[in-house]
Amino acid sequence: MDKQVIKRLRHPDLQTRIVSADEAASWIQDGMTLGLSGFTRAGDAKAVPMSLVERAKTEAFKVNIFTGASLGFDLDKMMAEAGIVHKRLPFQADASMRKKINEGALYFVDQHLSHTAELIRGHVLGAIDYAIVEAVAVTEEGLIIPATSVGNSSIFIEKAENVIIELNLAQPAALEGLHDIYSAEEQGMRDPIPLTSVDQRIGEPGIRVDLSKVKGIVVTEALDSPSTIVPPDTETAQMAAHLIDFFRSEVQAGRLTNSLAPLQSGIGSVANAVLHGLIDSEFEDLDIYSEVLQDAVFDLFDHGKIRFASGCSITLSEEKMQEVYANLDKYQDRLVLRPQEISNHPELIRRLGLLSINTALEADIYGNINSTHVSGTKMMNGIGGSGDFARNCRIAIFVTKSTAKNGAISSIVPFASHVDHTEHDVDVLVTEQGYADLRGLAPRERALIIIEKCAHPMYKNQLLDYFEEASARGGHTPHILEKALSWHTRLADTGTMFEEAAVIG
Amino acid sequence: MDKQVIKRLRHPDLQTRIVSADEAASWIQDGMTLGLSGFTRAGDAKAVPMSLVERAKTEAFKVNIFTGASLGFDLDKMMAEAGIVHKRLPFQADASMRKKINEGALYFVDQHLSHTAELIRGHVLGAIDYAIVEAVAVTEEGLIIPATSVGNSSIFIEKAENVIIELNLAQPAALEGLHDIYSAEEQGMRDPIPLTSVDQRIGEPGIRVDLSKVKGIVVTEALDSPSTIVPPDTETAQMAAHLIDFFRSEVQAGRLTNSLAPLQSGIGSVANAVLHGLIDSEFEDLDIYSEVLQDAVFDLFDHGKIRFASGCSITLSEEKMQEVYANLDKYQDRLVLRPQEISNHPELIRRLGLLSINTALEADIYGNINSTHVSGTKMMNGIGGSGDFARNCRIAIFVTKSTAKNGAISSIVPFASHVDHTEHDVDVLVTEQGYADLRGLAPRERALIIIEKCAHPMYKNQLLDYFEEASARGGHTPHILEKALSWHTRLADTGTMFEEAAVIG
Repeated sequence: MDKQVIKRLRHPDLQTRIVSADEAASWIQDGMTLGLSGFTRAGDAKAVPMSLVERAKTEAFKVNIFTGASLGFDLDKMMAEAGIVHKRLPFQADASMRKKINEGALYFVDQHLSHTAELIRGHVLGAIDYAIVEAVAVTEEGLIIPATSVGNSSIFIEKAENVIIELNLAQPAALEGLHDIYSAEEQGMRDPIPLTSVDQRIGEPGIRVDLSKVKGIVVTEALDSPSTIVPPDTETAQMAAHLIDFFRSEVQAGRLTNSLAPLQSGIGSVANAVLHGLIDSEFEDLDIYSEVLQDAVFDLFDHGKIRFASGCSITLSEEKMQEVYANLDKYQDRLVLRPQEISNHPELIRRLGLLSINTALEADIYGNINSTHVSGTKMMNGIGGSGDFARNCRIAIFVTKSTAKNGAISSIVPFASHVDHTEHDVDVLVTEQGYADLRGLAPRERALIIIEKCAHPMYKNQLLDYFEEASARGGHTPHILEKALSWHTRLADTGTMFEEAAVIG
Repeated sequence: MDKQVIKRLRHPDLQTRIVSADEAASWIQDGMTLGLSGFTRAGDAKAVPMSLVERAKTEAFKVNIFTGASLGFDLDKMMAEAGIVHKRLPFQADASMRKKINEGALYFVDQHLSHTAELIRGHVLGAIDYAIVEAVAVTEEGLIIPATSVGNSSIFIEKAENVIIELNLAQPAALEGLHDIYSAEEQGMRDPIPLTSVDQRIGEPGIRVDLSKVKGIVVTEALDSPSTIVPPDTETAQMAAHLIDFFRSEVQAGRLTNSLAPLQSGIGSVANAVLHGLIDSEFEDLDIYSEVLQDAVFDLFDHGKIRFASGCSITLSEEKMQEVYANLDKYQDRLVLRPQEISNHPELIRRLGLLSINTALEADIYGNINSTHVSGTKMMNGIGGSGDFARNCRIAIFVTKSTAKNGAISSIVPFASHVDHTEHDVDVLVTEQGYADLRGLAPRERALIIIEKCAHPMYKNQLLDYFEEASARGGHTPHILEKALSWHTRLADTGTMFEEAAVIG
């Protein structure tokens, strides 16, 4: 046996269970539910799902695919195109899978990322037939050491009937020691989660498993797909500047110190860019308590801005991946990866008092946020953890550029075509135009400040016209129902939300 | 001094601070913020707000009114009509105040009921000038013993610059001992809340106060306004039967036992009636962990169904009030009242794994819930605690009759005109027609089951027509945006959502 394998697969009983990916994939049967490791392209089970896709060329079958969050390696694309997915949850971010979802060709259950584990533990989602999880090692006592994400792997392993481990030799061995695996008891029978600070370790360094369930070990050797985030641009830099202004005003008001409060930052380019902007701020000794640790977190580390970062996955660009993996020891004492149930747990989000920064697709003038559905119908990716954070955090911040498609779309609309975050959960809205602090405001106050501070100048009059006409009709949250969705239907009909008449008139 | 007063006002320093309500009201100045006790008509400060309304007859001023939840004694009505309210939060349930809110004559901030205390503690809502709180006693060591509600009184007292106590001699002295006051530290500096079972006491029997802040004691003598809930009817009995069927199926699936899990039940007649229905079920040894303890909770006690009930207020009908107050000792060991921050705390809701039952105004075919806005614009009462519970509980159940106004309104619509609870937070929908278990379902699956199980027969075809036309266009959550709100505009135009053509065609 390969020395590398022996070094990483340290439990002797398991060394006899090495199989090929094809063999492992052959165990999966039509109708089964698979719990795959993987959270935003990090630490996903790679080889067995690929073999499964291969098998689909000669055999018709469907499975349910549960994960932590989105997968890399085009796995969601390949599985969707192969037509092998019956139900997919709790998150995805792939263009081909999205197309199938929107065609109704597969069922997607868009869940709060902290909820999936509870639903599995409570036997609501049905049995998991196979947990298929990537690991960098299995210890002498049989602890599975995950790779670059924990995600839902620990609950999958605990509850699955069978476990397949993808031992990935390409993932740095130095990831061992980074994880903190805490398992909750059943609801109603559990103690408080003892975590009271971002850097606290409350669990074990790996995932405990009933070894008799481990059906096979597949040895793999491929790094994660690099993240697809685009670098900061002028507008994201402006958004970051506005966010910094907001934080500064909180410090001036005595509500925050210069080390702020633990920060959570959502998935994607905009949230990453906004976080990146803190490099050039006066804030320091920052704590991160987030889901995904993206490039910006390591940039902030390298600029001496971060005291400690807790996440449930590390998802990096190709360049950053090389840099970080070559220097993991530099971060090791200041980094921890937890199950997504813990990174996103309402108990901890509220206790730690997070500042949460998540991305909006659109916001209405009253502060209701659509994070998921293009024009109210087509799924983009999913709500992810934003709902866990926005409802329970200290300050819920949503960021979006004020327009999209070269101005054809205003991200600020009269009426959100879909609501993922209600106005009760939206404290601050940030665009490249400015920020609106909505805390303690009634809807009519919110509308004026959102239009003034956040809307793009080309859409301000149009928004004000709507608001004024609606207000004259009355209501706590004034609307003209027959016009409420007219911006979206105009977009569909004419290719833009912009109303020429509003300029001429 | 009245013997009764001496017996209840046991701290000697305070006995010299008795003033009239008018005098206390005269201290309030234009622009001040008042924190009033009171939660769903229970334990509200009564005399000082009334004197304030009286003062408004000869003097123009406005104040901000913060409370636990809704007030009794027509206080919200009188304050709204007197025009003295600038901003009101976090909840109200009065027809006159509602009218003013919808006219834009006063600002209403509709908040999650667990959030207000955090926002005060975090200095986000500005200073509280006067806390005006009802008490049944002040102990020898100066602990303020609240009456029939705790609500936000403890945070008001802790953070206000001045405190006025309304010592209410009519409220039963036997309420003393029922309360458990736990105070949280600042976010980021706090320990886990140690509560792990419904009957656990984690705090003090009254509210600790800096005695130098107590500016006056006003002696009052009036019971709370009785609740306005209407008794169970045929439809609520059917809803209760469906809910019991659902619970039964959970027991059969091994996911619950015959004592279920701690129950939370929302404010109002429907939720009360549904809870009441458990009397005739096989379920027993029930725990209640709720906000308001309404008549049904005591009916269940009297039928030997309840082991323990935790709430933040007791709001009863006139008949039930007499009965319960005459026999408080019967319940005393099995009842506790907590601050609403604790009764509604996400940490505890998730840990205890509540079954939450809240009322919907309308639901759309995908399970998004409107709890607050009539036709998307006019505020009814507010979201109350439903958002605290629905996001973080074990099973989020929403109940509504399938139609209103003799069938002119379908409570199941294609597109919710306002969203308070997104489909991610809605597990089970119950109407008198049946229940839809939505857990683990994608939107297209949800639509079919909601229409089949919950919609009124007269609206089923109309809903199916919409869903089929929308589905043909595609989308994860199929909609026809130009028709999405047509049911509401039809209602406004014709007086009914019912479309004749759907019957003829």
